[in-house]
Amino acid sequence: MSRKVAVIGMGHVGSTVAHYIVANGFADDLVLIDSNADKVNADALDFRDAMPNLLYHTNIIVNDYSALKDAEVIVSAIGNIKLEDQPQADRFVELPYTWKAVNDVAPKIKESGFSGKIVVITNPVDVITSLYQKLTGLPKNQVIGTGTLLDSARMKRVVAEKFDVDPRSVSGYNLGEHGNSQFTAWSTVKVLDQPITKLAAEQNIDLQKLDKDAKLGGWYVFKGKKYTSYGVATAAVRLVNVILSDSRTELPVSNFREEYGVYLSYPAIVGRQGVIKQSQLNLTDEELEKLQNSANFIKQKYSESLNK
Amino acid sequence: MSRKVAVIGMGHVGSTVAHYIVANGFADDLVLIDSNADKVNADALDFRDAMPNLLYHTNIIVNDYSALKDAEVIVSAIGNIKLEDQPQADRFVELPYTWKAVNDVAPKIKESGFSGKIVVITNPVDVITSLYQKLTGLPKNQVIGTGTLLDSARMKRVVAEKFDVDPRSVSGYNLGEHGNSQFTAWSTVKVLDQPITKLAAEQNIDLQKLDKDAKLGGWYVFKGKKYTSYGVATAAVRLVNVILSDSRTELPVSNFREEYGVYLSYPAIVGRQGVIKQSQLNLTDEELEKLQNSANFIKQKYSESLNK
Amino acid sequence: MSRKVAVIGMGHVGSTVAHYIVANGFADDLVLIDSNADKVNADALDFRDAMPNLLYHTNIIVNDYSALKDAEVIVSAIGNIKLEDQPQADRFVELPYTWKAVNDVAPKIKESGFSGKIVVITNPVDVITSLYQKLTGLPKNQVIGTGTLLDSARMKRVVAEKFDVDPRSVSGYNLGEHGNSQFTAWSTVKVLDQPITKLAAEQNIDLQKLDKDAKLGGWYVFKGKKYTSYGVATAAVRLVNVILSDSRTELPVSNFREEYGVYLSYPAIVGRQGVIKQSQLNLTDEELEKLQNSANFIKQKYSESLNK
Amino acid sequence: MSRKVAVIGMGHVGSTVAHYIVANGFADDLVLIDSNADKVNADALDFRDAMPNLLYHTNIIVNDYSALKDAEVIVSAIGNIKLEDQPQADRFVELPYTWKAVNDVAPKIKESGFSGKIVVITNPVDVITSLYQKLTGLPKNQVIGTGTLLDSARMKRVVAEKFDVDPRSVSGYNLGEHGNSQFTAWSTVKVLDQPITKLAAEQNIDLQKLDKDAKLGGWYVFKGKKYTSYGVATAAVRLVNVILSDSRTELPVSNFREEYGVYLSYPAIVGRQGVIKQSQLNLTDEELEKLQNSANFIKQKYSESLNK
Repeated sequence: MSRKVAVIGMGHVGSTVAHYIVANGFADDLVLIDSNADKVNADALDFRDAMPNLLYHTNIIVNDYSALKDAEVIVSAIGNIKLEDQPQADRFVELPYTWKAVNDVAPKIKESGFSGKIVVITNPVDVITSLYQKLTGLPKNQVIGTGTLLDSARMKRVVAEKFDVDPRSVSGYNLGEHGNSQFTAWSTVKVLDQPITKLAAEQNIDLQKLDKDAKLGGWYVFKGKKYTSYGVATAAVRLVNVILSDSRTELPVSNFREEYGVYLSYPAIVGRQGVIKQSQLNLTDEELEKLQNSANFIKQKYSESLNK
Repeated sequence: MSRKVAVIGMGHVGSTVAHYIVANGFADDLVLIDSNADKVNADALDFRDAMPNLLYHTNIIVNDYSALKDAEVIVSAIGNIKLEDQPQADRFVELPYTWKAVNDVAPKIKESGFSGKIVVITNPVDVITSLYQKLTGLPKNQVIGTGTLLDSARMKRVVAEKFDVDPRSVSGYNLGEHGNSQFTAWSTVKVLDQPITKLAAEQNIDLQKLDKDAKLGGWYVFKGKKYTSYGVATAAVRLVNVILSDSRTELPVSNFREEYGVYLSYPAIVGRQGVIKQSQLNLTDEELEKLQNSANFIKQKYSESLNK
Repeated sequence: MSRKVAVIGMGHVGSTVAHYIVANGFADDLVLIDSNADKVNADALDFRDAMPNLLYHTNIIVNDYSALKDAEVIVSAIGNIKLEDQPQADRFVELPYTWKAVNDVAPKIKESGFSGKIVVITNPVDVITSLYQKLTGLPKNQVIGTGTLLDSARMKRVVAEKFDVDPRSVSGYNLGEHGNSQFTAWSTVKVLDQPITKLAAEQNIDLQKLDKDAKLGGWYVFKGKKYTSYGVATAAVRLVNVILSDSRTELPVSNFREEYGVYLSYPAIVGRQGVIKQSQLNLTDEELEKLQNSANFIKQKYSESLNK
Repeated sequence: MSRKVAVIGMGHVGSTVAHYIVANGFADDLVLIDSNADKVNADALDFRDAMPNLLYHTNIIVNDYSALKDAEVIVSAIGNIKLEDQPQADRFVELPYTWKAVNDVAPKIKESGFSGKIVVITNPVDVITSLYQKLTGLPKNQVIGTGTLLDSARMKRVVAEKFDVDPRSVSGYNLGEHGNSQFTAWSTVKVLDQPITKLAAEQNIDLQKLDKDAKLGGWYVFKGKKYTSYGVATAAVRLVNVILSDSRTELPVSNFREEYGVYLSYPAIVGRQGVIKQSQLNLTDEELEKLQNSANFIKQKYSESLNK
C-alpha cells in the first residue's frame, strides 16, 4: 500500500499542511478538497509546478470525495477566521461558520466509505471534533483533534526560551479546551530534569507570566500576519505521521474521555488505530478543577450547538 | 561550519521559502528580514511554535542585517504583487516597487560584509538580479536569478501530463526573460528519449498549445489564489541547496551572459561559487532570434530604470 | 493505507537497503526476512535500538512471510558473494546459490498472497528477475530488476568527474545485462547539453576509457571492501520510492522486452503498477548489435539454468 | 557556510554514520579518514556511485587531514572489535588497539588547526574521550562521547515494548560508564506520565529484568551480526545534528563532570559550542553510589592507561 492522506479546507492552514506533506514526501497520494474550486485548483497546480524541482513525488487529487474511501487520514482544516471578527481572540467566533461547513462535509466523508482517522484542526476544535465523530459515525478513537498539542508546544517554547534549552527538552502539557479555558498543568512540566514548580520557587520565576506569554504567542502571530499557520500545521502533520507509522507516541490531543463525557485535550497514546490508550496524570486539585471547568464549558457549547 | 541562509521579503513567496527550509532542516541558522516587522516576527514566532513538533531544529534570527555577514546564501523574495495591478500578467508592473526596495536593501547587504551568493526571486527577476549585482558589487557569478527554472518546470509539467510521465523525466529549457518574452526552446526538449519536435510531428501535437498552457499555468495559479508561491519557492530552495552542497547541477537560471551583455536565463552549472560554468546550447535560428529579442528587452528595461 | 515494504536477504546490500529506508522514514512497516535468523534479528534489534534517536518511526517485522500479503514492494537482496569466488568479477558465479535460494523463497512469496511489485537486486539480476516472475506468476511488469540503473549511475559518475558537473546533470544509459555483456549506449549520453560523442570528438576524449572506468568502479569497490552496497542499495530504494509514489519516472531497469523475449535493462516508465510504459531509443547499429548479444547471453543462461 | 563533517574510522560503525549522513543530506562536505586506504576509498566510490540516484548531494573527501581545519564536527568511529575477543562483552578489550590509534590520529587533528567539536564513539568511550581531549587540547566541552545515549535508547526500547508505546515517549537515563559499570537510573524514568518505579510496584514489574534485557540487547546484536552499528551510529548522528543546528538538546552523553573529575555519561545541554550546560539530577543514594563507582572505574582505567 502507499500512503494516502487528504486535506479538507485549503485556507492558510490547510495549504500549509499540504505543503509540509508535499515538501517532505510524507504522502504518496494527497487529496485536496475545498469549496473554493479556484483556490484548491490553484494550489494543486502550484504544487505540480513545484514537482520537477522537488525531492519527492506526490500525486495530487482535487475535490474528489470518492478518493477518500481508502485514505488513511483526513485532516480537517476548514476555517474562515478573520482578524476583525476576533477582537477577543475567541475561537468560538468561528463556530457558526465551521459548524455549518462540517455539517456539509462530514456526510460526504461518510458516504465515501472512509474508515480511517480524522485529524481535526477546525475550530473550536473540541466541539468540532465531537461533531465529526457524530456525523461520520466513526469510532471515537478514530476522530482526534490537534487540541493543545499546539498550546503545549507554545508552552514549551516559552519555557525553553526562559531556560535556554531546546523546546523538545521540555516535557509537560497544556490541557482542556483548545481555547480560553485551557491551562498549563505546571505539575506535569519538567525542564533540566527538574519540576518547573521547584525551579520557579528557587529562582523566583513567575509561572503565570510564562503561561500568559504562551497563550499570547498565538495572538501575536495572528495579529502580525492575520492568521496562524506553521505551528498548528506542524502539530497536525506530526499527528498524521504518528498515525501513518503507528508509532504509539504520547501526545496531548483532543480525545474523548469517558469520565468527562466530552472531547478535550489530555495526553493519549496515538497509533494507526487512532487513540489506542489514554494516559492518567497525577494532577493537583487545582488543575483537576480547571480541567473540569474546561470540560463543562466544551460540553455546554457542544450541547448548545446541537440544539440550535 | 553550519548552514546559514537568509530570506529577505516575507510575503507569500518568502515565507514559503522559509517554511520549506525549516520543514526540511535545510539550514541551521535562518535569517528573516522584512520591512513589516509585525509580519516577519509573526512568522518567526509561528516557526518557533512549530519547533517542538518539527523533525529538525532551525535557529530563526529576525531583521538583523549584521547577521548576513557570514550567510552562505541570501534569497531575495521582496515583492508586492496584487491581482488588481496585473490585468495583463506583466511582471514589470512590480518594478517601481521592487526597484526602490532593492535600492534600500542591497546597500545594507553590502554593508554587512556579506560575500556569499544571492538568489533573486524578486520580479522582474532579470532586471532586479542585475541591480543586486551592481549595488552589492558582488562578482556577477555570485548573483543568480531563479529565472526560467520555474518556467522550465511548468513546461515539464505540461509535457509530462501530455505523455503521462514524471516531469523529472522531461528534459529541456525555457529561456530568456522570466516574463512575457521568454520561450520554450523546443529543440532542447526530450521526453521518452525522443526529441519532442519529432514526437509532435508524428503524433500531431501542437507545441504552441503546450507552450501556451505552460505560460498560462502561472496565471491560473495567480488568479486562483491571488499569488503564486509553491512552484517558485521550490525552484529557489533547490537553487539554494545546489549552492550549499556545491553539487554543480545544470539549471536554467538567470545568469550574466557576456555575449548578450545582460542577465537572462540560460542553463549554467551552479555550485558553491555560484555560476561556475556556462552551457552552450545548439539552438535553432528562430530560437536564437527569440533569445536576442528577449535579451534586448531586458537590456532596455534595465537601462531605462537606471536612467530614471 | 500506510507504506509496507519488505526486504528479503539481509546481507550487506539488504541491510543497507533497510537502513536507508529506516533512516529516511520511507516505509511505515518494514518486513525483514533472512534464512540466518540470528543476523536478521540482530539487525532488527539494532534498528529498534536506533528508534529513540531516529527522526522517523518504522515498524520492523521479522521473518514472517504472511506479512508480505499486503506489502506494496518486496526487495530481493539475496546474495552470497565472496571475493575469493570472484577472480573475474563475474556475477554468474553467484547463480548456483541464488537460483536455489530464490526457488525456496519465491513460492513462499506466492503463497502469502502477495500481489505487489518485486524489485530484484539478486544477481545475476536479469536471470533471477525472470525466475521470480516465473515462480510467483506475477504479471511481467510487476517484477523489475535494478539492472543497469547502477551501471548507468557509475557511467554518470565517470562522465560527471570528467566534465566537473553533477552526475545528475548527465543523461544517458547503460543497457543490456547487468553483467559483463552490458555496455554504455554512448549515443544516448549527454552532458552540458551536448552529445558526449560530439564532445569526445572535439576534445579528444577516449570514451572506451570512460566506459572501462565506469565498469571497473564496481570492481574497485568490491575489492576494497569485499562487497558493494551503497550504490546498488540506493538504486533499489529509488526504484521502491518511484513505485510507492507512482511517479512514472523513466529508469534503465531490467524489464521484460517482448522483441528480445527476455528481461534486460532498457529504459522504462515505472510507477505504482510497475513498468507502465517502455521507451524506444534510437540506438546505433553497433549498439543494437551489442544489445542483441547481451539479450542472447541472458536468454541462454536463463534457459540453461531452467534445464539443469 | 556549508556543513562540513568528518568521520574517522570507516569500519561498520563509521561507514554507517557516513551512510546515514549521506542518505539524509546532513552534510555538504564529508571527510572520510581510515588507515585502510582501500576500504575508505571503496566506501567513497560506493557513495559517489549512489549520488545519481540519491536525493541529496554530498562532497566526499578522502584521507585528507588538512580538510579537517574548518570542519564543524569530527566523529571518531575508530574500532577493531572482534567477536572472538569478546567472550565477556567487555569494551576494554578494545583499549590497547584504540588507545594506540587515537594517539596516532589526535595529533593530526590538532595539527590540522581543527577547532570544532569531536563526537567520540570509539570504545571504551569515556576513557577515549578523555584521551582525545588531552591530545587535541580542545576545551573539555568540545569533546563529547556518545556514552549512554545508546544505552538510554536501549532502556527506552525495553520499557516501550513492555508498555506498548513509542520509545520516544519514554524519558529517563542510563548513567555512568558506557560499559559494564553503567546503570539505569530508574528514579529518572517515566512512561505514560508515571514514574516507572510506581508502575513497577503496582504492576509487579521486575525492573532488574528490564535492565538486564536492555544491557543484553547490544550483546544479542553483537552476537547476531558480529558487530553493532545502527543504534550507535544513529545516536552519534543525532549528536552531530544537535551540534550543527545548535538545538541545545538535553542528552545523556559522556561529558567531563568536575565533581567526578572524569568523563562519564550524565545528561547535558548540547549545542554548537558542544556541552553548554550540565544538568543536575535528583538521584537516589543507591544511584549516586553506582555513579561514583562507575566514575572511579573510568578514572582508574584512564589513569592506568596514561601511566603504561
